[in-house]
Amino acid sequence: MPGNIFGHSFRITTWGESHGRAVGVTVDGVPAGLLLCEEDVQKELDRRRPGQSEVSTPRTEADIVEILSGLFEGKTTGTPIAMLVWNKDANSGSYNNIKNLARPGHADYPYIAKYGIRDHRGGGRSSARETVGRVAAGAIAKKLLSHFGIGIAGHVIELGGICANPVSFDDILINVEKTPVRCADPDAAEKMLEKVVLARAEGDSIGGVVEIIVRGVPAGIGEPVFDKLDADIAKAIMSIGAVKGVEIGAGFECANMRGSEMNDPFIIEDGKIATGSNNAGGIIGGISSGMPIICRAAVKPTPSISKMQRTVDTSTLTEKEITIVGRHDPTIPPRMVPVAEAMVAMVIADHMIRSSRIGANSLSQI
Amino acid sequence: MPGNIFGHSFRITTWGESHGRAVGVTVDGVPAGLLLCEEDVQKELDRRRPGQSEVSTPRTEADIVEILSGLFEGKTTGTPIAMLVWNKDANSGSYNNIKNLARPGHADYPYIAKYGIRDHRGGGRSSARETVGRVAAGAIAKKLLSHFGIGIAGHVIELGGICANPVSFDDILINVEKTPVRCADPDAAEKMLEKVVLARAEGDSIGGVVEIIVRGVPAGIGEPVFDKLDADIAKAIMSIGAVKGVEIGAGFECANMRGSEMNDPFIIEDGKIATGSNNAGGIIGGISSGMPIICRAAVKPTPSISKMQRTVDTSTLTEKEITIVGRHDPTIPPRMVPVAEAMVAMVIADHMIRSSRIGANSLSQI
Amino acid sequence: MPGNIFGHSFRITTWGESHGRAVGVTVDGVPAGLLLCEEDVQKELDRRRPGQSEVSTPRTEADIVEILSGLFEGKTTGTPIAMLVWNKDANSGSYNNIKNLARPGHADYPYIAKYGIRDHRGGGRSSARETVGRVAAGAIAKKLLSHFGIGIAGHVIELGGICANPVSFDDILINVEKTPVRCADPDAAEKMLEKVVLARAEGDSIGGVVEIIVRGVPAGIGEPVFDKLDADIAKAIMSIGAVKGVEIGAGFECANMRGSEMNDPFIIEDGKIATGSNNAGGIIGGISSGMPIICRAAVKPTPSISKMQRTVDTSTLTEKEITIVGRHDPTIPPRMVPVAEAMVAMVIADHMIRSSRIGANSLSQI
Amino acid sequence: MPGNIFGHSFRITTWGESHGRAVGVTVDGVPAGLLLCEEDVQKELDRRRPGQSEVSTPRTEADIVEILSGLFEGKTTGTPIAMLVWNKDANSGSYNNIKNLARPGHADYPYIAKYGIRDHRGGGRSSARETVGRVAAGAIAKKLLSHFGIGIAGHVIELGGICANPVSFDDILINVEKTPVRCADPDAAEKMLEKVVLARAEGDSIGGVVEIIVRGVPAGIGEPVFDKLDADIAKAIMSIGAVKGVEIGAGFECANMRGSEMNDPFIIEDGKIATGSNNAGGIIGGISSGMPIICRAAVKPTPSISKMQRTVDTSTLTEKEITIVGRHDPTIPPRMVPVAEAMVAMVIADHMIRSSRIGANSLSQI
Repeated sequence: MPGNIFGHSFRITTWGESHGRAVGVTVDGVPAGLLLCEEDVQKELDRRRPGQSEVSTPRTEADIVEILSGLFEGKTTGTPIAMLVWNKDANSGSYNNIKNLARPGHADYPYIAKYGIRDHRGGGRSSARETVGRVAAGAIAKKLLSHFGIGIAGHVIELGGICANPVSFDDILINVEKTPVRCADPDAAEKMLEKVVLARAEGDSIGGVVEIIVRGVPAGIGEPVFDKLDADIAKAIMSIGAVKGVEIGAGFECANMRGSEMNDPFIIEDGKIATGSNNAGGIIGGISSGMPIICRAAVKPTPSISKMQRTVDTSTLTEKEITIVGRHDPTIPPRMVPVAEAMVAMVIADHMIRSSRIGANSLSQI
Repeated sequence: MPGNIFGHSFRITTWGESHGRAVGVTVDGVPAGLLLCEEDVQKELDRRRPGQSEVSTPRTEADIVEILSGLFEGKTTGTPIAMLVWNKDANSGSYNNIKNLARPGHADYPYIAKYGIRDHRGGGRSSARETVGRVAAGAIAKKLLSHFGIGIAGHVIELGGICANPVSFDDILINVEKTPVRCADPDAAEKMLEKVVLARAEGDSIGGVVEIIVRGVPAGIGEPVFDKLDADIAKAIMSIGAVKGVEIGAGFECANMRGSEMNDPFIIEDGKIATGSNNAGGIIGGISSGMPIICRAAVKPTPSISKMQRTVDTSTLTEKEITIVGRHDPTIPPRMVPVAEAMVAMVIADHMIRSSRIGANSLSQI
Repeated sequence: MPGNIFGHSFRITTWGESHGRAVGVTVDGVPAGLLLCEEDVQKELDRRRPGQSEVSTPRTEADIVEILSGLFEGKTTGTPIAMLVWNKDANSGSYNNIKNLARPGHADYPYIAKYGIRDHRGGGRSSARETVGRVAAGAIAKKLLSHFGIGIAGHVIELGGICANPVSFDDILINVEKTPVRCADPDAAEKMLEKVVLARAEGDSIGGVVEIIVRGVPAGIGEPVFDKLDADIAKAIMSIGAVKGVEIGAGFECANMRGSEMNDPFIIEDGKIATGSNNAGGIIGGISSGMPIICRAAVKPTPSISKMQRTVDTSTLTEKEITIVGRHDPTIPPRMVPVAEAMVAMVIADHMIRSSRIGANSLSQI
Repeated sequence: MPGNIFGHSFRITTWGESHGRAVGVTVDGVPAGLLLCEEDVQKELDRRRPGQSEVSTPRTEADIVEILSGLFEGKTTGTPIAMLVWNKDANSGSYNNIKNLARPGHADYPYIAKYGIRDHRGGGRSSARETVGRVAAGAIAKKLLSHFGIGIAGHVIELGGICANPVSFDDILINVEKTPVRCADPDAAEKMLEKVVLARAEGDSIGGVVEIIVRGVPAGIGEPVFDKLDADIAKAIMSIGAVKGVEIGAGFECANMRGSEMNDPFIIEDGKIATGSNNAGGIIGGISSGMPIICRAAVKPTPSISKMQRTVDTSTLTEKEITIVGRHDPTIPPRMVPVAEAMVAMVIADHMIRSSRIGANSLSQI
């Protein structure tokens, strides 16, 4: 059973390689009646596309989305929404001289081990370009959720060893796009930017941590015991290339806490049940508690670096050296922010429909 | 769509509440021809059952498994294997006086928010007792994998702030069951045990980190782009109660590494492709690399503590105080080891079959 | 990927062989708050069990259901409902002398071809006994649907060449249990019974047709384009052993009709949209029209007959003769009525939840 | 949960409406290493497209397929294969005057009941144009199966009351494309053609029966007890618009047969197990027997007829009359042949992979 489909009630199928003709996605399960246009999707794609600043690759990809189905008179009809983005600026030739070399940190060798053959041009399906479909579909999930008072904010909280100070949800929305590193703490952002510039100058790359916060999710979504909301978020985030860790709420900090510190006391706030702290990150027993959902992704440094590295030739099984030329992001987290937001948005949309909080057939149903 | 089914090609359905008549699991997708008996399952259940030592609850549950289907003349037949364990020693009465109080850190309130009603006796479906089915099914996955040279080892690497020194895979197998904290580093184990005893004496609890290592997985399993091997492991582990974080290989450490440190160089070892280090934790691009698979779970401290806590009455929406009496584990990681092993084993078995590395119908097929 | 799970939002897993220890089912996705007791399930099992009359096998199986989970204080809790029935009266010895012979019309040989080994005692998993789980789960689906004004009626409309006259939905409910052949037309029922008695006397068996009608399904359920309501009903019914054909509404008659005959004119009835005829069988374009849903199953004659038959020994690949002794139903349709009702009920329940017409979490949600 | 995805191991997602910008499909699960080009797909699309003869609508749709992903150097890579066909010749204006009228026999009203809104131009998603994606994906399934010696043949065996004489598998392949009615019995074909011409002249339409035969399927595929091979075929075929019945082997004839007639005796043929007759249609107990798989679909007459019909206006709930102008096929079965072949091919491919008879990752794997 292949793995290019994600979600159950809000369900997407993505396709396309970095150097193929196009990349795209089909979104199945969007209720009818949602106002939607290409601009809704385009603005999210613009956030993920390369060439935006000095922290990302100078390749310019216009990445103009085309919606091919599922809309009628400006509204969704309940039928699948197919979207595609044509590929451009794909200089495949630069990959020819390393086509049998397994780039360290890249999926070249595992793909060969799995499929026997591999599209060596730029990573093929394992390229970050695959996330175009995720972001496009996530844009629809976000718009759907906004109808139900649910908002999502993502930001970089650690980069190259620099940690940001905590900021409010609203401050993230206000500040995150003001800096190319997508850190909502301006002081930290400046230091992070220095780290990026330094790493690039040295032909190296740096990792970091992305945090996503979801506000307005009602208590009661998430499906025990395997499709818990945090389990599905963990899968969604870990499925993004370069992510090596996921945590919810207090996350790994909880390993060094006592129960009396970790437990969030329940309180009554504005006549409703809430918790005094939110170490749970809005999810208890796999079900939303009504508090903000907080999750974080550990992102490894970009594997494509210009420093010389040891590797092997997969066709001859001999050891080689490799130097990766070309234009690559010296760090991934800033561009991953919209991707992680998209993945989390889709999980929430999926579970909102699964729990009958959003009508499966029509926006006006429930 | 409910969430009590896990996996695709190796697929389980669990059922049962902590104070119901029984708990159980049905395993669908075990190839025919596997030698299997109740003892294979029982030995894993014995590892997870309570009452084993001073670090776990003194409740004694014999937890004798009965296999009800899917075997003939000592071998699996390819049909579903149903297993159950009858519940005993369930003193439901002790929960009556807190039946409307939402225990902090427990899923009581989210269950009410979701379903409107709740079996308040001991956590019902959100109880750790639910893991009986997981461990029973995992025992079959482990036995299946052992036929293909795949072994799994789990251990506690951090507890109450005490961190264990790195140990080899074989040392884990040798040492892990020698101490009730299931830490394979004897010195650290002793200190961890002190932390547990202290926390218990204070009516409190402590968290920790569990690590699982899988040896012998061939390169090439895992399904891009959403059902990546690490994505499915992340979901599997995060779906276990009390887990708040998951990481693969270098995990969150990668956020502070450079690409030149993080990338594992490919090398030729014994004529085969391997990597010189294993920061990737055996998974690159969501596909196994042939190196050991390494994952870790952050486990929160037991939410049931005897210290007084603030909470609310969900029926009257008033604030209350709660003191949880009864016998509870002061720490979860030691008993989670076999549960996490089981979940990872099932993910590997699932993907081995999905990739046609194990025949879907019969053990002798491929 | 194995096949013992059925449905999506109302989802069951069945297990058990005819001569194993028990047969059972786990039902996942029943909304919380449904009043349910073992008697609700038992009454349907009593309709399917053997030994009820001269048209069925004289084996007596008490078939007492036990509900092991998912209920609290007489109501469903939203968690999985596990049910089992212990096997009795299983004289496995009588199968020993034919254990390597492939009984004609039975799945013995295909099972061997698939799994390499086979539980030869009484058909194992391919036995009609497997339907115990379906009927038990279907009883819950029926009770759930009845809360939403949906009723199901099944009857035998053809048996051994005798065709029943059309009867109303209410007449089916009134008359169907009055005769062992479960035909609601008393005259035809009498003739059918004669055919059964005659076939049995000759050591032979007869086939027939079962019809299921569902009343009260609202317009708008069913999921284009693959999970159409009729497509899922077709799968559900064809998955019952011995069924060789399925039709909806006019069914195969439509092949010889003109469009002007087949098309059901839309009319306004009691202020609502209806159709003047119902050749569509209540489903157009895969979506319910609000008219009664009508489907039929062609059921082959019982393959176990006492007449001598030609066959092969699967272990020696030599041709043999076989005479099947033992007590077998001379005809299947009467006992299939509750099974087919159960399957259709589950499809309707599944799609009612999928379309958010029934709340996924709680009966009082929508 | 929406319904635009079909299959498990060989899995497709279709999208697109009759008057949208394009229609398409993504095929996930094609093993790597299959030689594939657009011509392989185009030849099947050419068989389904309209405008081929006097029995189909004179609309001309070139229907040129574009493969956008999943191929590298002429071979599949194991990644998703996205295909699309741009829409042309879509005169939407002709639907404006009937946009609120529910065309009898069409899904207009059920779509409104389900989604609240509807793309009224030409049936939208319920149009036969949706089958472009099925046929394109089926072409890949056919090519994959041909590598394993599996061939598929479809033909019309009944049309407008005219029944064809039985013909061999090879005769179907030779004769079926010689006549626009796709009947492999030349005499019957001629009479069928007369029936079509007559019906068209009278502004009416006729129904028929399509038969699909699959040769070369090994014994042992199909997943008991719900995903039986015949159950999945039944769903696949019933999911095609206009199909009202499905049968396997003897089908509805079995209702009037005795066990001694219906049971296919097992024999040894060329040293292998076979059956002397094939009333089972190649499937016993839901598993392939190694004999040819035979299934049939009852197809209703085209609902679009130019005769005046009674209907309702769904916006005003008043009764109206409707006359459908425009160019429509007077009969559906001839054009359904390639569609039904495609659906059956995909079910077989899916189950071949599910049973590990075809490697999930690579053509050369098993």
